[in-house]
Amino acid sequence: MDTAALADQLRQRVAQVRDPELGVPLGELNAVHAVRLRDGCVELYLELIPPVRWIAQQLEQACRLAIAELLPEAPVEIYVREREIPRGSTPPSLSEVKHMLAIASGKGGVGKSTVAANLAVALAQAGATVGLLDADIYGPSAPTLFGLQGMPLHARKDEHGRVIGIPHQRYGVRVASMGFVLQRDQAAILRGPLLAGYFMTLVEQVDWGQLDFLLFDLPPGTGDIHLTLAQKVPLTGVVLVTTPQELALADVRRSAAMFHRVNVAVLGIVENMSYFTCSRCGHREFPFGESGGERLAEELQTVLLGQLPLDPLLQRASDEGIPAVEHPAGAHMRALFAELARCVVREIRRHYARTAAPPPEIQL
Amino acid sequence: MDTAALADQLRQRVAQVRDPELGVPLGELNAVHAVRLRDGCVELYLELIPPVRWIAQQLEQACRLAIAELLPEAPVEIYVREREIPRGSTPPSLSEVKHMLAIASGKGGVGKSTVAANLAVALAQAGATVGLLDADIYGPSAPTLFGLQGMPLHARKDEHGRVIGIPHQRYGVRVASMGFVLQRDQAAILRGPLLAGYFMTLVEQVDWGQLDFLLFDLPPGTGDIHLTLAQKVPLTGVVLVTTPQELALADVRRSAAMFHRVNVAVLGIVENMSYFTCSRCGHREFPFGESGGERLAEELQTVLLGQLPLDPLLQRASDEGIPAVEHPAGAHMRALFAELARCVVREIRRHYARTAAPPPEIQL
Repeated sequence: MDTAALADQLRQRVAQVRDPELGVPLGELNAVHAVRLRDGCVELYLELIPPVRWIAQQLEQACRLAIAELLPEAPVEIYVREREIPRGSTPPSLSEVKHMLAIASGKGGVGKSTVAANLAVALAQAGATVGLLDADIYGPSAPTLFGLQGMPLHARKDEHGRVIGIPHQRYGVRVASMGFVLQRDQAAILRGPLLAGYFMTLVEQVDWGQLDFLLFDLPPGTGDIHLTLAQKVPLTGVVLVTTPQELALADVRRSAAMFHRVNVAVLGIVENMSYFTCSRCGHREFPFGESGGERLAEELQTVLLGQLPLDPLLQRASDEGIPAVEHPAGAHMRALFAELARCVVREIRRHYARTAAPPPEIQL
Repeated sequence: MDTAALADQLRQRVAQVRDPELGVPLGELNAVHAVRLRDGCVELYLELIPPVRWIAQQLEQACRLAIAELLPEAPVEIYVREREIPRGSTPPSLSEVKHMLAIASGKGGVGKSTVAANLAVALAQAGATVGLLDADIYGPSAPTLFGLQGMPLHARKDEHGRVIGIPHQRYGVRVASMGFVLQRDQAAILRGPLLAGYFMTLVEQVDWGQLDFLLFDLPPGTGDIHLTLAQKVPLTGVVLVTTPQELALADVRRSAAMFHRVNVAVLGIVENMSYFTCSRCGHREFPFGESGGERLAEELQTVLLGQLPLDPLLQRASDEGIPAVEHPAGAHMRALFAELARCVVREIRRHYARTAAPPPEIQL
C-alpha cells in the first residue's frame, strides 16, 4: 500500500472516532483536517469545536487507538486546533474573549450570583482563564462574594488617553462589578437607559484581555441591561438559574422567552436550592418542591445542567467572601461545581456544533 | 362624695390603666375621653389609637377592674372609638381604607409575596377586612398564590362613566394584581414611568371599598413604583421582608434608606427562611445563617416582627393556589402568621402613638 492510500485509510478510521461529548463521528464533524505520514510517523491534524480543553485528552487517546489498529508501532503526533466560531461584531475590549456566557434568572433571590461566582471559579480551577462581570445594579454581589467590598476599580490610561479599568483578580477570576463603579445609593435613582450606559462602560472600558470565558452575571428580570447585552455582545448563550418552585419557574419562562426573542440561545438550566440534607440524620428534603427544573428544561427544550443543594456552606462562604468551591470545608461543593462547569462547557460545544456550519473540507 | 367628684376619681383610676400594647397609661395617651355616672351606671368613653380590635377586650377588662375597685357593684358601659389619624391627601379609591402598608424587600426571592399573601389572610382570619394590591410587575404572584391565574379583573362603570375594577375576593382578602391587567410579556418592555402609571391605575381605579388594611406587595428594589407609592398614597409604613444572609441584608438596608428618604416609616422586619426543621429528626438548621434579621433590626432601630421557617408547605401551598394559613396542613403556619399579624398591628399602633400628637383634652 502506498503512503497516500495508507493515510487515507487512517483518515477513514479516525473519522469514525466519536467526539466524546457530541457523540458524533469526527468525520461528520469535518474534524479530521489531515492525516500525514512522514518518516514512518503519523501526523494527525484535528480541528475541533471549542472549547477542547476538557475533551482533548480523551479524544487523543481514542484517535491513537484507532491509528494503532492499522499501525500498532508507529509514533503518532496529534495536532489539535479549535474551529473558529463566526460571531457578530465585538467590542474591542472583548476581542480576545473566546466564549461569553450570560448567567440570568427571571427572579431574584434564586442564588444566581452565588452560582455565577462559583461556576467562574470552578472553570478557573479546571485551568481556564475566566472573567466575571457583575452587572447587577441594585444588588451587586461579586464584591461580597469575592471579599472585595469597598475596593475601587483601578484604572490606567491607554495609548489613546482612554481610561481603562483593571479588573480585580481573585481565586483565578478577573472580577469587575457595578458595585465598584456605582455608589450604592446611586443605583436607586438611575433609570434604565443610563444603567445600560454604565453597563457598557464596564464591558468596553475594562481590560479583560485574553479569556476563555467571560461570565455576565445579570440582574434579575428582563430589563435594559439584558437587551443592551444581547445587542452589543456576541453571546454564546445564556445559563438560566432557578429554584424548583412554580413561582420561580414562571419567571424563568418569561426570561427564556426574552432571550429567545433577541436570538440568544438558552444553553441550559441550573436548579439551585434543589434539596436540603439534614446535617444530623442525613435526610434529604425538598423545601421548594421536587424536579421543577427538570420539567422546565423539558418544556423549554433545553437541558438541566445541574442541581445544587441548599447548603449552609454556600451561604457562609459567600458572607465570608470566599467562594464555596475555594472554601476549606467546600470539597463537596468543588465536586458539584466542577461537574456543573463540565456540563456548561459541553453545552457550549453542542451549541456550536448545531449552529456553526462546518467549513468546506480542504485537502492539504 | 358627689357624682362629679366620684366621676373624677374613676377617671383618675382608669387613666392609670396601661394600654396593653403601648405600655403607656391611658391618661398619658389622652385616651380617657370622659367618665359619666348616669342612674348608678358608669359610662366610660375611650378614644384609642387604632386599630383597637385586638386590644379592645383586654383593655376593657382592665378598665372594668379599675372601676370595680371604687364601685364594685355598678354596671359599667364602655364606649370605644378610634382616634382619627391625620393623613395626607388620599386618592378617593382609598378614602375608606384605614391602614395602608407596603410590604417590600430590597432583594427578590426572599418570599416577600408569600409573606404578604399569608399576612393578608391572617389579618382577615382575625376578623379584619383586608385588601392586597400586588404591584410586582415582572413577577406578579398573587394570581398564583390565590389560585387566580388567568382571571381577568372584572370592571363596572361608575356614575361618571369611569371604569372601575372589582377586586377578586379569596380567602377573605380583596385581591388585585398587575398580573390581572398586564400581559406577561408586556411587562418586559414597559419603562419605569409607564409602569408607575399602570400601578396608579390599580390603586385608583379599583373599587377597594371599606378596608381595615390594604397591603401593597411591592416589586423588589427601589424603583419608580416605590417612589410613586410614597408620593401618592398616605402609607402607614413599610414592612421589610428579608432572609438572614448578609447579601440580602445589604439590599434591605438600601431599601430602608430609600423609604427613610421619602418619609415612610419602617414598621419592622420579617425574617423569612430563618430556619429549616428536618421532617425526620426534628433537627433545626439555619441554611441562610443565624440572627441576621435581629442584627439588622437593631441596626435600623426597628423591630424584628417575626421569624418564619423555610417550610415545604409554604412552597406547596403557594403552588397549589392556597395560602399556607388556609391550607389543611397549615396549622403551624396559621399560628405563626396570626402572631405576625398581631405584631404588625402592634407596630402600627406604636407608630401612631409616636407620630400622632394627642388631641387637646376636651371636658364634656
